[in-house]
Amino acid sequence: MGEATLLPDRGTEILIPVCAVIGIAFAFVQWMLVAKVRLSNGKDSPGGRSGFTEALIEEEEEGLSDHSVVRKCAEIQSAISEGATSFLFTEYQYVGIFMVAFAILIFVFLGSVEGFSTKSQPCTYDNTRMCKPALATAAFSTLSFLLGAFTSVVSGFLGMKIATFANARTTLEARKGVGKAFIVAFRSGAVMGFLLAANGLLVLYIAINLFKLYYGSDWEGLFEAITGYGLGGSSMALFGRVGGGIYTKAADVGADLVGKVERNIPEDDPRNPAVIADNVGDNVGDIAGMGSDLFGSYAESSCAALVVASISSFGITHDLTAMLYPLLVSSVGILVCLLTTLFATDFFEVKAVEEIEPALKKQLIISTVLMTFGIAIVSWISLPSTFTIFNFGVQKEVKSWELFLCVAVGLWAGLIIGFVTEYYTSNAYSPVQDVADSCRTGAATNVIFGLALGYKSVIIPILAIAVSIFVSFSFAAMYGIAVAALGMLSTIATGLAIDAYGPISDNAGGIAEMAGMSHSIRERTDALDAAGNTTAAIGKGFAIGSAALVSLALFGAFVSRADISTVDVLTPKVFIGLLVGAMLPYWFSAMTMKSVGSAALKMVEKCFNKGDDSSRCLVMLTPLIVGIFFGVETLSGVLAGALVSGVQIAISASNTGGAWDNAKKYIEAGASDHARALGPKGSAAHKAAVIGDTVGDPLKDTSGPSLNILIKLMAVESLVFAPFFAAHGGLLFKIF
Amino acid sequence: MGEATLLPDRGTEILIPVCAVIGIAFAFVQWMLVAKVRLSNGKDSPGGRSGFTEALIEEEEEGLSDHSVVRKCAEIQSAISEGATSFLFTEYQYVGIFMVAFAILIFVFLGSVEGFSTKSQPCTYDNTRMCKPALATAAFSTLSFLLGAFTSVVSGFLGMKIATFANARTTLEARKGVGKAFIVAFRSGAVMGFLLAANGLLVLYIAINLFKLYYGSDWEGLFEAITGYGLGGSSMALFGRVGGGIYTKAADVGADLVGKVERNIPEDDPRNPAVIADNVGDNVGDIAGMGSDLFGSYAESSCAALVVASISSFGITHDLTAMLYPLLVSSVGILVCLLTTLFATDFFEVKAVEEIEPALKKQLIISTVLMTFGIAIVSWISLPSTFTIFNFGVQKEVKSWELFLCVAVGLWAGLIIGFVTEYYTSNAYSPVQDVADSCRTGAATNVIFGLALGYKSVIIPILAIAVSIFVSFSFAAMYGIAVAALGMLSTIATGLAIDAYGPISDNAGGIAEMAGMSHSIRERTDALDAAGNTTAAIGKGFAIGSAALVSLALFGAFVSRADISTVDVLTPKVFIGLLVGAMLPYWFSAMTMKSVGSAALKMVEKCFNKGDDSSRCLVMLTPLIVGIFFGVETLSGVLAGALVSGVQIAISASNTGGAWDNAKKYIEAGASDHARALGPKGSAAHKAAVIGDTVGDPLKDTSGPSLNILIKLMAVESLVFAPFFAAHGGLLFKIF
Repeated sequence: MGEATLLPDRGTEILIPVCAVIGIAFAFVQWMLVAKVRLSNGKDSPGGRSGFTEALIEEEEEGLSDHSVVRKCAEIQSAISEGATSFLFTEYQYVGIFMVAFAILIFVFLGSVEGFSTKSQPCTYDNTRMCKPALATAAFSTLSFLLGAFTSVVSGFLGMKIATFANARTTLEARKGVGKAFIVAFRSGAVMGFLLAANGLLVLYIAINLFKLYYGSDWEGLFEAITGYGLGGSSMALFGRVGGGIYTKAADVGADLVGKVERNIPEDDPRNPAVIADNVGDNVGDIAGMGSDLFGSYAESSCAALVVASISSFGITHDLTAMLYPLLVSSVGILVCLLTTLFATDFFEVKAVEEIEPALKKQLIISTVLMTFGIAIVSWISLPSTFTIFNFGVQKEVKSWELFLCVAVGLWAGLIIGFVTEYYTSNAYSPVQDVADSCRTGAATNVIFGLALGYKSVIIPILAIAVSIFVSFSFAAMYGIAVAALGMLSTIATGLAIDAYGPISDNAGGIAEMAGMSHSIRERTDALDAAGNTTAAIGKGFAIGSAALVSLALFGAFVSRADISTVDVLTPKVFIGLLVGAMLPYWFSAMTMKSVGSAALKMVEKCFNKGDDSSRCLVMLTPLIVGIFFGVETLSGVLAGALVSGVQIAISASNTGGAWDNAKKYIEAGASDHARALGPKGSAAHKAAVIGDTVGDPLKDTSGPSLNILIKLMAVESLVFAPFFAAHGGLLFKIF
Repeated sequence: MGEATLLPDRGTEILIPVCAVIGIAFAFVQWMLVAKVRLSNGKDSPGGRSGFTEALIEEEEEGLSDHSVVRKCAEIQSAISEGATSFLFTEYQYVGIFMVAFAILIFVFLGSVEGFSTKSQPCTYDNTRMCKPALATAAFSTLSFLLGAFTSVVSGFLGMKIATFANARTTLEARKGVGKAFIVAFRSGAVMGFLLAANGLLVLYIAINLFKLYYGSDWEGLFEAITGYGLGGSSMALFGRVGGGIYTKAADVGADLVGKVERNIPEDDPRNPAVIADNVGDNVGDIAGMGSDLFGSYAESSCAALVVASISSFGITHDLTAMLYPLLVSSVGILVCLLTTLFATDFFEVKAVEEIEPALKKQLIISTVLMTFGIAIVSWISLPSTFTIFNFGVQKEVKSWELFLCVAVGLWAGLIIGFVTEYYTSNAYSPVQDVADSCRTGAATNVIFGLALGYKSVIIPILAIAVSIFVSFSFAAMYGIAVAALGMLSTIATGLAIDAYGPISDNAGGIAEMAGMSHSIRERTDALDAAGNTTAAIGKGFAIGSAALVSLALFGAFVSRADISTVDVLTPKVFIGLLVGAMLPYWFSAMTMKSVGSAALKMVEKCFNKGDDSSRCLVMLTPLIVGIFFGVETLSGVLAGALVSGVQIAISASNTGGAWDNAKKYIEAGASDHARALGPKGSAAHKAAVIGDTVGDPLKDTSGPSLNILIKLMAVESLVFAPFFAAHGGLLFKIF
C-alpha cells in the first residue's frame, strides 16, 4: 500500500489532458478533410479531387460535370440539417426546463441529508476524519449534473452537425467511386466518435481538478459529488434516445408530420418530405441519441469506478495516478482508436463494395487487439502491484494484473457481443435468411420467427456479460465491474465512428435518390448503407452490453454508499423489489412503443408532451418513490430486477428489429436464388417482410435502446440520492 | 407449542379423505347428468329432455326432430375423441420413456448423497436425532415422483375424455336453448375440475399415510420424499402443456397434419380435417394441458408447504392436524367449490346469452368469498394460536390469524389477477378495442399495439403478486408463500370448471358448423364460446400467478433444504445466476415459438421428436447442470432470475395473444358502430386483425403458458435434488 506507481502523478496530470486534446484535434482534422469536398457551388466540386486520396481513379466516375446535381444535394442537405437543428432545439427547450427542475431537486434532497448544515461532518467510511458537509456535496453534485448534461448536449449536437454536414458530401463522392464515399462517411463518423470521447474525458478531468480546489484531501466527498456528472449525461440521454427514437419512428410513418417541423419545405415539394423527415430522424435518433447514450455510459462507468476507488486504498493514501486509472484507460483508448482509424482511412483502401463491411469489422478487431496491449501498459505503469479495494464494508486485496484482466474481459466481451449481434442481424447468415424464408407463409409467421430470433439472440450476449461479471467481480468486486464496463467502452471512439457511419451513409443514399442521381450511384450508396445497417446493430448490442455492466457497477456503488452489506433475495423487501423491478422494462416498453403508434397518428410536438413524458417520469421517479417510501433494500431489488430483465428485452428487441429490417433488404436485394424466389419488391413475401420491418422499427430504434437508459439512469440516480435515501428513506416500513 | 388444536388428529384423518371422496362422487354425478343427453341414436335424442331441467322451454326449440344431425354430431365427436386419445397415447409413450429415465436419475442422484448407505444418519436440522438414510429418501422420492406423474396423467386424460364426451352433447342441447347448452358445458368442466382437485388431494394423502408406515416419526424425511410428488406432476405438465400447446397451434395452421394423426378420416372428408384437428388441439392443449399445469401447481405448493412445515414446530412436535393444514385448506376448498357449482347449475339459471359471462364471473367471486370463510374456519380449528415456522435457519413465531391472512391474500390476489386479465383481453373494454382500432392502419400497427398491451397488462398482476409475497413472507416466511399459493389454488375445482368450459363450448361450435346446423344454433354456441374465451384468459392469468407463488415457495424450500441462509445478489455467483436465469425464459420461448412454426410446416411427430424435445431438455437439464457445476448459490440466482423474468413474459405473452384473438372477434361480431366501421370479415382491417391473431396463437397457447412450467419445474427439481447438490455440487468452483 502506498507503493509508488511507475507513472508519477505529474505524468498523469499531463497525459490525460494531452490525450483528450489530441482526440479533439484529430476530430477537427477529420472534419477539415471532409470539408474539402466542396458543396458551395457546382464549379468548385471537382476541386474535391485535389484532396487526400487520388487512388480510385480507375473506377468509373460519372456525373461529375452535372453542376445542378451538386446544387440540389446542397439544398437537400441544408433541409435535413435545418430539420435536425430545429428538432434538437425544440428538444433542448424541454430538456432545459427538466434539467433545471431536476437540478433543484438534487440540491434540495442532498442538502437535506444533514439539514442544510454548513459544518463539516465525520466521514461516512472513516469516522476519525472530518469531511465536507452534505450541503457542499449537494451543491457540487448539482454542478456536475449540469456539467454532464451540457457535455452530452454539446457532443450530441456536434455529432449531428458533422453528420448533416457529411451526408451530401458522401453522395457527391459516390460519383467518384465507392472508396471515396466510404472515406468521407467514415471520417465524419470518426469526428463524432473522437469529439465525444475526448470531450467527455476532458470535461470530467477539468471538473475533478476544479472540485479538488474546494475539497482538498476529502476525495471521498469529491468523487461522490462527481457522480452527478454521470447522472447529467444519462438524463440527457433519456431525452436524446427516447425522444429522438420516437421522432425517428414517427417520421418514418407519417409524412404529414414534416411540414410542422421543417417549415421551409412546402408539402408538395419534389423533395419528398417523408424522406427528409426520415433523414432528420436518423440524425437526431441514431447520431445524437446514440451519442448521448454512449456518452452517458462512459461518464457513468468512470464515475462508478472513481467513487469506489475513492474509498479504496488509492483514495485513502491519495495515490493520484492509481486513483485516475479509469481516466488513464480512456486516454489510452483515444490514442488506440486514433491509430485504428488510420487503418481504415490511410493504411488500407476500400476499393470495392465487398470490402466495406470487412473494413468496418476490422476496425472493431484492430481496436480491441491494440487496446488489450494499451490496457496492459496502463495497468503496469499506473497501478501498484497490490492494492485494496472497498468491497461492501470489507477490503479486498487486488493485484494489478487482476485488474488488467477485469478491463480486458469487458473489452473482449464487447467484441463477442458485437459479432453475435452481427450474426443474428446480418442477412449473410442463416437466422435472417430463415426469417426471410418465413415470409413465404405470410406476415404472421414472419413476426413469430422474428420474435423467436430476438429471444434466441439473447443467449450468448448474456453468457458473455455473465462471464465478464463473474471474472471482474471475483477479482476486484464492484470496482472490477466498473473497469470492465470502461474496458468495453475504451474503444468508444471507434465504436461511435462505425456507428455514426451508418446513418450518414443512409442519408447519402436518400439524398442521391432525391437529387435524381443515376442508378449506379444509388447502388454504391446502397452498399455503404447495407454495411452501415450491420454496424448499427453491432453498435446497439455494444451499447446494451456496456449499459448492463455500467448499471451493475453503479448498483454496486449505490449499495456501498447506501451502507448496505447484503442484498438478500430471501428477504421480502428485496424480493418484491426484484419482481417489480423486472416488471419496469415492460411498463416502459409499453409506453415507448405506444408513443410511436400515437405519434404516427398525431404530431411530433404532441408526442413530446404526452406519452413520452410519462415514460420519462416513470424512469426518473421510480428510484425516488421506491427509495423514499420503501427504502434502500427494496430499491436494490428494483435495480437488480430492472437490470436483469431490461437487458434481455433490450437485446431481443433490437435484434428482432434488425433482423426484420435485413430480411426485407435480403428479399429486395435478391442476391441469391433463395432471395430471388421470395422477391421481387411487391411480392406477397416482400409485403410480409415489410410488415415485419414496420413492427421492428419501434422495437429496434425506440423501445430496445431506450431500455439501456432506463437501467442506467435508475442506477445512477439511486447512487446520487443514496445518502438521502439512507437518511430519510423507507417511510412506509417506518410507519408499520 | 404443542398446544392442542380444536380439530383432533382423528378428525383430520377422516375429514381429508371424506372431502376428496365427496369431490370425486360429485364429479361422477355431474358426468351422469351430462350423459343423460343421448347421443347414441337419433330416436333417443329427445329423451334428453326428460333430464334435469325443463325450464327453458320458452326458447325456440329447433331441429329436434332432425335425427341425422344427431348422428352426424356423434360421428364428429367420436372423430375428435379418437384424435385426442391417439394424440395423448402417442404423448404418453414419450412421457413414459422420459419418466422412467428421470426416475432412475432421481434414484441414483439422491441415493449417492450418502454413498448408497443403508444406515440411518443424523437428521439435517436436528443432529441429536437419527433420520432414515438418503437411500430411503431416494427410493421414496422416486416412488412419489412416479405417483405424481401418474395422477397427473389420469386427471388430464379423464378431463379430456369428459370434454370430448360433452362437446357434441352441448351442440345438441343448444337446439333447445342457450341455457341448456350452458349447463351441459359447465357440468362437464366441473367434472374435470373436481376430479383433478379431489384426485390430487386423495393420492397425496394416501401417499403420506403409506410413506409414514416406513418413516414413522421421521417426518422430515417423509416430507422430503413427498416433494417428488410435485416434481412428477410438474414434469408431466411439461409434456402436457408444451406438447399439447404446440400440437394445438400446429393443427391450427396446417390441415395436412391431420391425416397423419387421425387415420380414420380421409383427407377429402366433408368434415374438414383442419377443424377436427383444431378441436383435438383444444382438448389436448387447453383441457389436458391446462389440467396438468394446475395439478402441478397444486401438488407443488402442497409439497412446498409440507416440507417447510415438517421442520417447523408442527413437524417437531408431531402435531398432525396443524401439519396437514395445507391439505385441510384444499379439502375445504372442494366443499366450497361444490357449493359454488350449484350456484351455476341449480340455484340460478342462465336464460339469455348476456347472462353467460356474468354467470361464469360470479363463480369466481362466489368461490373466493366463500373460501375466505372456509380458510378462516380451517385456520381456527386446525392451528394452534401460536406456532413457530422454520425461516432459513432461524425460527419465526406465527399466529394462526396471520397464517389465515397469508392464505387469504393469495386467494384474493388470484381474483384480482383474473379480473385484470379479463380487462385486458375482453373486447368489452377499451384496451382490446384500441388494438382493433389500430388494425385500420394495417397489421404492423396491430402487432405493435398488441405487444404494448401485453407489456402493460403485466403491471397490476405483478403488483398483486408482490403484495401477496410481501404480506405472506412477512408473516410466515416461505411457509406463508406456500400457503398463499395454496390459497390461490384452493378454488381450483371452480377455476378449472370455468376453464374447461371454454374449449368444450368451442368444440360445440365447431361441431355445429360441421354438422351443418342452423344459423341460430351457431349463434348460441358462439355466445357460449365468446364467454369461454374470456374465462380461458382468466384461467391463464390465474395459472401464471399461482405458478409465481408456487415457484417462490419451492425456491424457499430449496434454499432451506440446500442449507443456504442468504442469497446475496452482491456475490458474483448469485448475480450471474440471476442474469442467466432471467435469460432462460427467452431461450425457452424462442424454442417453443419456433416449434410451432416448424410444426406448421412439418408433422406433429416430427415436432415431438425435435424442437420440442430440446426445449424440454433445457428445462429439465438446467437445474442439474447449474447445480452440479456451479453449486447451490448460482442455482438460487438462476431460480430467482427465471422466476422474476418468466412471470412477466408469460403474462404479457398470454394477454397479447388473448387481446389479438378478441380484437379479431370484435371486428367479426360488429356489435358496435366502431366495430362495424372496421369490418366486415375480409376487410383490410379484418385481415390485419387475422395476422395479429395468428401471431398471438403461439404466444398465448404455447410460449406463455409453458413458461409457468419452466419456472415451477426448475424450482421443484432443484428442491428434489437439493441434498445432492449440497453434497456434490459446485464442481467448477471447487476446481478453481
